[in-house]
Amino acid sequence: MKDCLFCKIVGGEIPAHKIFEDENTLAFLDIGGDFYGHTLVVPKVHCTNILDCPPNVLAAVMATVQKIAKHFVENCGFDGVNILANNNAAAQQAIMHLHIHIIPRKNGDFDDIYKPRQKTEFDLVEIQKQLLLGN
Amino acid sequence: MKDCLFCKIVGGEIPAHKIFEDENTLAFLDIGGDFYGHTLVVPKVHCTNILDCPPNVLAAVMATVQKIAKHFVENCGFDGVNILANNNAAAQQAIMHLHIHIIPRKNGDFDDIYKPRQKTEFDLVEIQKQLLLGN
Repeated sequence: MKDCLFCKIVGGEIPAHKIFEDENTLAFLDIGGDFYGHTLVVPKVHCTNILDCPPNVLAAVMATVQKIAKHFVENCGFDGVNILANNNAAAQQAIMHLHIHIIPRKNGDFDDIYKPRQKTEFDLVEIQKQLLLGN
Repeated sequence: MKDCLFCKIVGGEIPAHKIFEDENTLAFLDIGGDFYGHTLVVPKVHCTNILDCPPNVLAAVMATVQKIAKHFVENCGFDGVNILANNNAAAQQAIMHLHIHIIPRKNGDFDDIYKPRQKTEFDLVEIQKQLLLGN
């Protein structure tokens, strides 16, 4: 969709640090700098969020979320993941293209996901190398 | 599974404020008292979280999550929902049975989901009446 940031990333118009891609979904690093390894999974087709996406689109996105979550824990040295999705502006959704947040966690890394975080200048190229699952 | 709180709720051994139930999933109000209408969706079969659940179980749970999210916004007067899943202790998972949190939101209800909340003595029976989608 015109003027949609994530459609532009899907279409290659705007670069991103990709972690995984398949026919229907794309996963890339969030540039917000709040959590190390913060990853977003989006469908290639445009929809706003869980409230309007077709069930098969949601299923494809969640299959990718599961694949990446397992990859982070089994292969990348993490001990767990938080999964988050904000739906509509009332729920703090900022980009109006369905996206699921995956935040990799280590035991004792920080105390509480429910606290605002300082922005950090992560080296996304290095993190991408660590977390890459392939294309 | 023996000694699993959510298996006991699924099995009817422990009561809960049910919002929705189908063949494979159950949705009920969280008793934590952090957010008005905070709902949990669980599979009836036991699995720990997204890291070990079979894909068809995850798909069934997410189909119910979508159904409830749409119900909250279309029929219950909410403007959006946050969806959260904590996977493994490192990610602050407290009950080791897969569960997806749904937090209904209204425009301007509070400023940030990522802030700890005071425990509130919600009237869960009244909230259940408002949010019930049926059995």
